Amino acid sequence: MDKLKLKALYADLRPDLDQVEKELITSVASDAPLLTDASLHLLQAGGKRIRPVFVLLSAKFGDFSIERIKHVAVPVELIHMASLVHDDVIDDADTRRGRPTVKAEWNNRMAMYTGDFLFSKAIASLANIEKPYAHKLLADTMVELCIGEIEQVEDKRLYDLSVKDYLRRIRRKTALLIRVSCELGALASEVDDKTRIHLRNFGYYVGMSFQIVDDILDIVSTDEMLGKPAGSDLLLGNITLPVVYARDEANVSRLLARIEQGDTTEETRHELLTVLRKSEGLEKAKRLSNLYLEKAMNEMRSLPNSPAKRSLQNIALFMSKRKF
Amino acid sequence: MDKLKLKALYADLRPDLDQVEKELITSVASDAPLLTDASLHLLQAGGKRIRPVFVLLSAKFGDFSIERIKHVAVPVELIHMASLVHDDVIDDADTRRGRPTVKAEWNNRMAMYTGDFLFSKAIASLANIEKPYAHKLLADTMVELCIGEIEQVEDKRLYDLSVKDYLRRIRRKTALLIRVSCELGALASEVDDKTRIHLRNFGYYVGMSFQIVDDILDIVSTDEMLGKPAGSDLLLGNITLPVVYARDEANVSRLLARIEQGDTTEETRHELLTVLRKSEGLEKAKRLSNLYLEKAMNEMRSLPNSPAKRSLQNIALFMSKRKF
Repeated sequence: MDKLKLKALYADLRPDLDQVEKELITSVASDAPLLTDASLHLLQAGGKRIRPVFVLLSAKFGDFSIERIKHVAVPVELIHMASLVHDDVIDDADTRRGRPTVKAEWNNRMAMYTGDFLFSKAIASLANIEKPYAHKLLADTMVELCIGEIEQVEDKRLYDLSVKDYLRRIRRKTALLIRVSCELGALASEVDDKTRIHLRNFGYYVGMSFQIVDDILDIVSTDEMLGKPAGSDLLLGNITLPVVYARDEANVSRLLARIEQGDTTEETRHELLTVLRKSEGLEKAKRLSNLYLEKAMNEMRSLPNSPAKRSLQNIALFMSKRKF
Repeated sequence: MDKLKLKALYADLRPDLDQVEKELITSVASDAPLLTDASLHLLQAGGKRIRPVFVLLSAKFGDFSIERIKHVAVPVELIHMASLVHDDVIDDADTRRGRPTVKAEWNNRMAMYTGDFLFSKAIASLANIEKPYAHKLLADTMVELCIGEIEQVEDKRLYDLSVKDYLRRIRRKTALLIRVSCELGALASEVDDKTRIHLRNFGYYVGMSFQIVDDILDIVSTDEMLGKPAGSDLLLGNITLPVVYARDEANVSRLLARIEQGDTTEETRHELLTVLRKSEGLEKAKRLSNLYLEKAMNEMRSLPNSPAKRSLQNIALFMSKRKF
């Protein structure tokens, strides 16, 4: 994703995001230099802070106070980070975003407890918001993320994954944390219920659209654009929407059968990418992504015009229409 | 520990504990049969539910309602369970309390996300209590538990661990979660501040005394009583208070040097146990444990007499004076 272009869409938020960034650093302070170092290592890896952006923009529809809202923006980003560091333990990953993982730089024990530490710090930060319902929302989302992690394995190598299975998976993997970011931002700023629900639904639909696009880009992008071999996830049995749709096309099903029998050579990967890029499945996936984008835009329709609304619309468009 | 004798000390709590047990089972329900099964597997392993007992008894000093207080008792037990299951991943343990661990029965991924799931369910349960400060207390305790886990490794094999280091370690390992159990129970039942602080301190001192006794029993008990070889932790470099105190006695230091050089034979273990059992260090450790027990009892002194107070006193006595 072109980070610079994305950031231009919420340039107005710069001072608020700087405050969030400061609070992120403050929030991981502790008596344990190792845990704080590992957390800072993760924070400094960058990331787009897209979840805090959704929190802030949603909060702008109500009684906005950066001093209050930073305690919502920080937890969602910390939970995102915690889930990444735990994933790295399980996936045995050595790098993420081009930097060594906590697991690689320190060890598995550090990665485990850094994740737990970040979860705890997220809850501690949210405790500044005097709304028990906020804790319930965030905790319920965390539960769904865990379920998603377990389902992902069950689904793995299941070449008969249905469209419904796929959608349920990306809902938990991506859409729910964006949804809760919007909803918590609105809740903490006393946004009226009707607007809050629109923002919440908007976040959900944007998340769905975004993840489908991500999965399309994994097929159509070059290795250089992705920073990893295109289609590599498919070889591992992580089936995505374009493949689900294209599975019945003769060339695709022939190749999938080969992969399922263990043929994961470079040649097979290239062949699969070639047929998928020309397949109907790719077009169908794009259509579904556009449908979610449309639904997201519909949620915005009845909300009053404002710079925050325009930013949300632009971000949604950008995330769904990006080329990498 | 003699579970039956312990349970007799809080027989009055039986109906309340049954409610907590039911709520524990309800609380781990989810759309993910695997995660719920793994959680039930952990719940059914038993455990003394000593943390919920501290919650309930502390709550009895105020406006007690089981419907409310179960949402405090459940989270502390779930967090205890979550930390055990994550420990089992790191320690690569195959059994706990004589049952296969989640890691052994399923796999590491399941253990990781079952732990995360239990953390999340703990927060979700506590969200029923309309007190943001309760979340802060619990989250801060979770942070301290993580720090404890990391420190434990740093300390490992450090044969120059000081008494202060040891106390800091057991504070995080044991005392803080009992302290927060008492404090949250009091907080949720609107116990007045002065009584709440006494209960909180009581929990802390009982926890300290309890852990020192546990470490003493690891040396003086038979293998049968412990269900594992006595002194086995010491061979792994987990130095406990009796050893810290006895380290300067000639026979002890000679043996420790041998262990540090990699001699972890059965013979060495028996020799170490023999000298430790006769050492001054063991007596000194008992004295410190008694001192903490005394401090715990002092905290109770100014509180009004009640069945709950008597139960807390009896449990403290039992936990500190038990023979296994």
